[in-house]
Amino acid sequence: MTVSVDQFKNYDGHAQRERPPEDPELTHVGINTPCGEYLRQFWHGIALSEELTDLPLEIRIMGEDLVLFRTSDGEIGLVHRHCAHRGASLKFGRVESDGIRCCYHGWKFDRAGCCLDMPAEPADTPLKDEVRQRAYPAQELGGLVFAYLGPDPAPLLPNYDVMVREDCKRVVGVKTDHCNWLQRIENGHDPAHLGILHAAGYPQIALQRNIFTREKTWYGYRTISKFKDEMAKVSHQIFPSHTRRVGARVGDPPRHYIHYRVPVDDTHTATWSVQVEITDEGPYDTVCRGWSPTERMVYEHEEDGWWGIPSRDQDRIAQESQGLIHDRSRETLATSDSGVVQYRRLLSEQIKAVAEGHDPLGVIRDSEKNQCVSFDATMNFADGVKGAPDMINA
Amino acid sequence: MTVSVDQFKNYDGHAQRERPPEDPELTHVGINTPCGEYLRQFWHGIALSEELTDLPLEIRIMGEDLVLFRTSDGEIGLVHRHCAHRGASLKFGRVESDGIRCCYHGWKFDRAGCCLDMPAEPADTPLKDEVRQRAYPAQELGGLVFAYLGPDPAPLLPNYDVMVREDCKRVVGVKTDHCNWLQRIENGHDPAHLGILHAAGYPQIALQRNIFTREKTWYGYRTISKFKDEMAKVSHQIFPSHTRRVGARVGDPPRHYIHYRVPVDDTHTATWSVQVEITDEGPYDTVCRGWSPTERMVYEHEEDGWWGIPSRDQDRIAQESQGLIHDRSRETLATSDSGVVQYRRLLSEQIKAVAEGHDPLGVIRDSEKNQCVSFDATMNFADGVKGAPDMINA
Amino acid sequence: MTVSVDQFKNYDGHAQRERPPEDPELTHVGINTPCGEYLRQFWHGIALSEELTDLPLEIRIMGEDLVLFRTSDGEIGLVHRHCAHRGASLKFGRVESDGIRCCYHGWKFDRAGCCLDMPAEPADTPLKDEVRQRAYPAQELGGLVFAYLGPDPAPLLPNYDVMVREDCKRVVGVKTDHCNWLQRIENGHDPAHLGILHAAGYPQIALQRNIFTREKTWYGYRTISKFKDEMAKVSHQIFPSHTRRVGARVGDPPRHYIHYRVPVDDTHTATWSVQVEITDEGPYDTVCRGWSPTERMVYEHEEDGWWGIPSRDQDRIAQESQGLIHDRSRETLATSDSGVVQYRRLLSEQIKAVAEGHDPLGVIRDSEKNQCVSFDATMNFADGVKGAPDMINA
Repeated sequence: MTVSVDQFKNYDGHAQRERPPEDPELTHVGINTPCGEYLRQFWHGIALSEELTDLPLEIRIMGEDLVLFRTSDGEIGLVHRHCAHRGASLKFGRVESDGIRCCYHGWKFDRAGCCLDMPAEPADTPLKDEVRQRAYPAQELGGLVFAYLGPDPAPLLPNYDVMVREDCKRVVGVKTDHCNWLQRIENGHDPAHLGILHAAGYPQIALQRNIFTREKTWYGYRTISKFKDEMAKVSHQIFPSHTRRVGARVGDPPRHYIHYRVPVDDTHTATWSVQVEITDEGPYDTVCRGWSPTERMVYEHEEDGWWGIPSRDQDRIAQESQGLIHDRSRETLATSDSGVVQYRRLLSEQIKAVAEGHDPLGVIRDSEKNQCVSFDATMNFADGVKGAPDMINA
Repeated sequence: MTVSVDQFKNYDGHAQRERPPEDPELTHVGINTPCGEYLRQFWHGIALSEELTDLPLEIRIMGEDLVLFRTSDGEIGLVHRHCAHRGASLKFGRVESDGIRCCYHGWKFDRAGCCLDMPAEPADTPLKDEVRQRAYPAQELGGLVFAYLGPDPAPLLPNYDVMVREDCKRVVGVKTDHCNWLQRIENGHDPAHLGILHAAGYPQIALQRNIFTREKTWYGYRTISKFKDEMAKVSHQIFPSHTRRVGARVGDPPRHYIHYRVPVDDTHTATWSVQVEITDEGPYDTVCRGWSPTERMVYEHEEDGWWGIPSRDQDRIAQESQGLIHDRSRETLATSDSGVVQYRRLLSEQIKAVAEGHDPLGVIRDSEKNQCVSFDATMNFADGVKGAPDMINA
Repeated sequence: MTVSVDQFKNYDGHAQRERPPEDPELTHVGINTPCGEYLRQFWHGIALSEELTDLPLEIRIMGEDLVLFRTSDGEIGLVHRHCAHRGASLKFGRVESDGIRCCYHGWKFDRAGCCLDMPAEPADTPLKDEVRQRAYPAQELGGLVFAYLGPDPAPLLPNYDVMVREDCKRVVGVKTDHCNWLQRIENGHDPAHLGILHAAGYPQIALQRNIFTREKTWYGYRTISKFKDEMAKVSHQIFPSHTRRVGARVGDPPRHYIHYRVPVDDTHTATWSVQVEITDEGPYDTVCRGWSPTERMVYEHEEDGWWGIPSRDQDRIAQESQGLIHDRSRETLATSDSGVVQYRRLLSEQIKAVAEGHDPLGVIRDSEKNQCVSFDATMNFADGVKGAPDMINA
């Protein structure tokens, strides 16, 4: 038998039905969008060094479809996927000693997009010197390949400590998150979720309030977190989209990390991760863990007394479940969201600065300052568990 | 050798190529659409009671994404899927004794959407009393869970006979039809198809013309069908989207049925079915048959001398094959479509009535009238097969 | 350690970022588009004769969804998929001796779309004579079924030599290319790719420049190709979308071919192929190879020293990889693209001619001229390999 309606007072699902639409300013990354042009001022991870073979590799970044290759002369080329001639994909091109040759009519381009051969044209065709395959600079560092898709001149690829230090064991890997890039970045500016989303991995601080302070720096933010005045974590949020921190979840040894978050397009984000273990003894090498396969909203369920989701997927699930592009008009921001609020405000300012022709925060052009860019990342528990040796003082 | 063109005169496929576009008034069910607001005046089936566990269940109804749960205190909660804080999905929330807790920052909401806890905020935050997770009333009846997504105050959930009678064996189940809701409802207002689409199941009346009369009632229509003056069927079309009838196809025992058709979104429709067998002897229980998996335009072929489609899929196939949203501008309506024409006209009037603030046909607010809402559904064949015992006089 | 920026000068990927949008005039094929109306002046391949059974066959051509059937009286019917009554799909209709009957309310239509029966209506309903199911002419030739979707009167279905000659072994087949039709047609007007895309199959002319001349004819173009003055190929490009040529790739015997390219919709193209082997001895029959399954951008990799793609997929891959609808605004056309440029210009003229009420190039209305339409297709190599016996002089 059905119930009386009296118990259904004060449900306001229907009353709350209208809201303003989402704002694309901070979320859309395609070419010629404000945020897309801002992001194009930086080098971004695009591949694992290990993936570079004599077969062209399809790359998608910020909505652009490219092809990456290494010539037999050892040079790295990154060009637009469609041939400048009639648009066939260079994915089916042949990599030769000095460039890549299109399968359709045989035009060959070097890594800068200059045309080296047009076999179906007269030998003296002036077109060979005129045509340019759209190309972008690319280079390797620490087991990853990075690209620069912005205007001339390119800045320096930053030599972050975990990328260039040689006294460590390094593991690199990558996975795709099936959501907009901003959700992934905001997570790094949000210390409040640490003891909640990751409660199963940090039982010391489960459901505990995190008191954190943030300091603005030349690269973004330095954040200090405290729980019950007993534990402190120092982490760094490097603009536009990297985090530099220490992790010490239950079951894992403490390690230093950098995560490069790179928009694949408006609804996919790659996370290029580098983890470093500082050890007294070698061998000091770089191991490639490859791609971790992920599928949108497909996760394993794991009984842990909390959210039932495995440690490795907790951040991904929280962000993917916000939606492909999270509708921020429906949020209710609280005091613990101050990091996210700061980040959005500064990101918006940076987008405007780039539109006005200025260099944004975090860009490095002075090679003296790029010998080794170090960070004081730590994570210490009062119970004696120390997150990881400090890379500054180690 | 090809043929002369003379035999190709009078083909007018090309000449008939222009038509007006489809009218969304009766088909679109999203929030803030006229038909969507009309449908939100009623309780709708959303889940099987059996599906309610301590894991949150994703629900999609009329284009809204929700999460359904039963607390360990036994209360049923139905809230919007995205947390009011930062939008993470409550599908990954933890169901506690008094509500559901979001995985991202731990906000906890009770079944009415009131916030019970914000662990990352100061203990005295006023925000806890201000924020509301969008929630809707939900309750169980006869093995199904029903929800009300409309404005305050909620009407009563109707106690239809097959839902509340206790002297019967009840079987509940559900499946998804991959088309717009209106196609599924119109089928219930269309007695003409009985002996044609279902010819294999009703050989007595195969390809026979159905002479039917319809009477408007407080809940919609009562329809009497006759074939060759020899057989009569009485069925009821309950607004907005239910049918109450008897079925007696070859190979099945006669049974009483109610079918609740519920728009999942503009192009998917759930059918929550309750079938009841009136028997002298018990045990009188409710059996849950669960979800019958369906896939758009994927059907088994079965040789039967007619359409080659299994009995259980005949209605689904006819409606799905009309298109995701049937383009009514290309129809040719005939006298036997009078039920469909009546329904469309009355539905349109009802949508306008709701827009003007009136209660629509079929809504029950008087609990005296809601003790047991009975219907005289029958199906009798002249050859002595009686469809099912009358529930009114049984 | 990262590299200096000096080596990254002259990359212009970012500078080249703006281009005009694609022009739909030559690519969109739907009803009431200029190119769609042009294409509707011709007969097009729609099915293999072998596929015609007593079960209705779903056909999609130029964005229209149809059903094809052969009655037990032997007539071929081609009607719109959705019944003129209430829109159920005739795919689930029953094919009878004189027409097809809809599963929903039993309306029966003959092959010209006239209604033969309305079982749910009064026997004397005038509606039966008024309603017309949209129907198109269809007929068979050489193992294929062809349809005409244009205005009255239909032209003749051309009796091309390979379709009507009886002194040969004929093989028919079909596959789907997952891209716009124009990419597939342009490939037939582009002799330059022969020695490049098909380098592995024609080692004699690999990466060689093709010197070709084209002559405009009543049906389109006749093309003569030469490599190093040593080899000549004569092929024909029949408007709107057929090629008539000889093929002699390594590993295959030389054969005559016609390929009918038919737009399924804007992003899918069917290729109906007929290959003919002229032999002194029979048996002379037609073998149906059926459908070759294809999937967009899914190809086998095969090491061949060139592009790594199997002979049968080389054209498909080049065209599919141009994009679903190739963005021609980004092309760089060269002298060897003269065939493609000519074709686009003439196609554009033909579209305008049809819009002004004229018959386009290639349409045949005089049955005297349609006894056997022959072509002098050849392919000769200087090393003595002769492509195939000439069908004109054989």
